[in-house]
Amino acid sequence: MPYIALTNMQRPGIGGLLAFRPEPARPLLELAEVILRGPNTLTTGERELIVTLVSSLNGCEWSRRVHGAFASAQLSGGRSLVDQVCQDVDTAPVPEKLRALLRLAAAVVRSGKAVTPDLVAAARQLGATDTEIHDTVLIAAAFCMFNRYVSGLGTVVPDDPAVYERLTGTLLSGGYLALGSVELPERG
Amino acid sequence: MPYIALTNMQRPGIGGLLAFRPEPARPLLELAEVILRGPNTLTTGERELIVTLVSSLNGCEWSRRVHGAFASAQLSGGRSLVDQVCQDVDTAPVPEKLRALLRLAAAVVRSGKAVTPDLVAAARQLGATDTEIHDTVLIAAAFCMFNRYVSGLGTVVPDDPAVYERLTGTLLSGGYLALGSVELPERG
Repeated sequence: MPYIALTNMQRPGIGGLLAFRPEPARPLLELAEVILRGPNTLTTGERELIVTLVSSLNGCEWSRRVHGAFASAQLSGGRSLVDQVCQDVDTAPVPEKLRALLRLAAAVVRSGKAVTPDLVAAARQLGATDTEIHDTVLIAAAFCMFNRYVSGLGTVVPDDPAVYERLTGTLLSGGYLALGSVELPERG
Repeated sequence: MPYIALTNMQRPGIGGLLAFRPEPARPLLELAEVILRGPNTLTTGERELIVTLVSSLNGCEWSRRVHGAFASAQLSGGRSLVDQVCQDVDTAPVPEKLRALLRLAAAVVRSGKAVTPDLVAAARQLGATDTEIHDTVLIAAAFCMFNRYVSGLGTVVPDDPAVYERLTGTLLSGGYLALGSVELPERG
């Protein structure tokens, strides 16, 4: 049961919040679209994997399930790989550069100040570019926001796997703005 | 010294990051503008006070200084009130409804799951509306992102108070989009 009386109680997770307060909904959805689906040397699957790990570490069940479904659908390792990364980044079967970026993301979850020059240097030594390091920090930081927004207002997390399958279909066909599918206000 | 080679090393704090990666800059600045300066029953000063407390709790020196300057300029209690809130929310001379919202924001810093029905009920009992509760959680969550973005990439925090005075002048005259003053890409 959400902590506030949402306009549309039918919409689970962040959906009800975006409908309740449409003004910030557009920049929130645009941010997700840009950082997770914009042009990037990191694949959409790799970026969703970072989001799933961050959401798992933050204990945000909604984001873990949603982005875990998105990552599983876009990574050749599928659900099994996603689960292994959430269980243990150190032993999961991922390329070493991606592992270093996942460690960077895990540090961001603890605190911005937990990102050390050593963690950054390790990623760079394994081939991560400055843009990939930047984007990993921003993606992890953004989901420290989204996770808190969703959990901090006590939103509903459905059990039905069909919910997450439907969301995955919408994401793959229309991206994050379609996923929001809220009445967005006119641009100011 | 920032962890990545920023295009414009002259710009302190988040400024260098927004110039380095302009694609997410627009939604980030639009989000700040909407949640901190959009129509709201919470004043801009009260919202900047929430941001300053969150940034202080996250140990983000850049955001604490910038938003502390913004809050001081927009609250009748000025710098002294801002400092007292950062030192101790329980004893700072703020109205009780605002104190309850500040406690809500402090919980969000710890975790989305640290926001309890009791904290929300306490704010509501003191007159906070659902929208104010929602906005407080979103503002606090957003600065758990901005703080991590800024600290996690090791950006520069100038000592010179003139920097923060200049930023305050720009904010008050032009808002967050003027503050970004980066070459933003065309909308897609």
